[in-house]
Amino acid sequence: MVYQEELVVETGGHRDMHDLTERVAQAVRRSGVKQGTVTLFVIGSTAAVGTIEFEPGLERDLPEVLDRLLPPSRDYGHERAWHDGNGHSHLQATLLGPSLVVPVCNAGLPLGTWQQIFLLECDIKPRRRRVHLTVMGE
Amino acid sequence: MVYQEELVVETGGHRDMHDLTERVAQAVRRSGVKQGTVTLFVIGSTAAVGTIEFEPGLERDLPEVLDRLLPPSRDYGHERAWHDGNGHSHLQATLLGPSLVVPVCNAGLPLGTWQQIFLLECDIKPRRRRVHLTVMGE
Amino acid sequence: MVYQEELVVETGGHRDMHDLTERVAQAVRRSGVKQGTVTLFVIGSTAAVGTIEFEPGLERDLPEVLDRLLPPSRDYGHERAWHDGNGHSHLQATLLGPSLVVPVCNAGLPLGTWQQIFLLECDIKPRRRRVHLTVMGE
Repeated sequence: MVYQEELVVETGGHRDMHDLTERVAQAVRRSGVKQGTVTLFVIGSTAAVGTIEFEPGLERDLPEVLDRLLPPSRDYGHERAWHDGNGHSHLQATLLGPSLVVPVCNAGLPLGTWQQIFLLECDIKPRRRRVHLTVMGE
Repeated sequence: MVYQEELVVETGGHRDMHDLTERVAQAVRRSGVKQGTVTLFVIGSTAAVGTIEFEPGLERDLPEVLDRLLPPSRDYGHERAWHDGNGHSHLQATLLGPSLVVPVCNAGLPLGTWQQIFLLECDIKPRRRRVHLTVMGE
Repeated sequence: MVYQEELVVETGGHRDMHDLTERVAQAVRRSGVKQGTVTLFVIGSTAAVGTIEFEPGLERDLPEVLDRLLPPSRDYGHERAWHDGNGHSHLQATLLGPSLVVPVCNAGLPLGTWQQIFLLECDIKPRRRRVHLTVMGE
């Protein structure tokens, strides 16, 4: 059994993080799949998905450490060619990755109590993000 | 065909790495799946899974470089709110990621000779970890 | 339905990046799967796969920032044991990860316009890389 849909998320620009856990869980229930996996895939090259304890501290810490490791800069090759100011956005998104696979068990997500599914906007301006979901199983 | 089970791993705390390759291969054999994928997902927000050449040098190097890039610190927002000393653990685990998908071929795992599946404990104290496995295919 | 094949990529050594998008899309068409997922898995411990806007600027930036964060060095435990000069290659590959899961929709890949699938060679010499593909769905 394969079920697909897209979540749309309006982001507020760089460093904006969204908790998608409940929306993904609802999609899994709609799918009718009891045992299997749900694959998230964010369409576009400047946003990422993953899991984290979704609380205000880490919501600030994660984008902050990404900006420390991969800072905004005019020196990226991407910048010198495109001048759109988001070279670091591409690199941060690639490092975190666009896809996440979470198991589906008894029609639910066996996440830890302090483990939520997030979307992180790495681009420098607000974007309308599409997160593609594929639920597979039986 | 969908087969699910959980591996339990008792970790020794921060920087402790475990080679899960043989246990995952055994679960795949139990599943009866010949062609497909096995999805690993570590439950909780302060551990990660991935692949590495599992040898004593890299077993020490990987946690060490993570501690250099994302060091223990009292300055994380997570620390200022929760004071549990593991802000870096959350960030390291999120960066490496909680899930890994490995193909299943002829009822086995087509890993490289020097490529093993690891669990890395990023938390500061020993934990009982549950790694959820989903084997799907035919 | 499960379809598997391997892509072979001859790399030019450290920092060499390849755009696999079209080859993955062709494999998906050969599979006959209309809705589902394709899982990429690079066999070996010193290469990685992911998504990026594949253009010359970022093609240079990504390996460069990886070399800044995880530089070549004789001080890694891996180096002291094996003296093969590629401790950083292992660490970079583990951080980016060996696997990527992309949805399959209407027999195609719903990637963003500026989002391509890449293979990055992290090892210090040219390698013959095998990227295993599993297309699953209906």
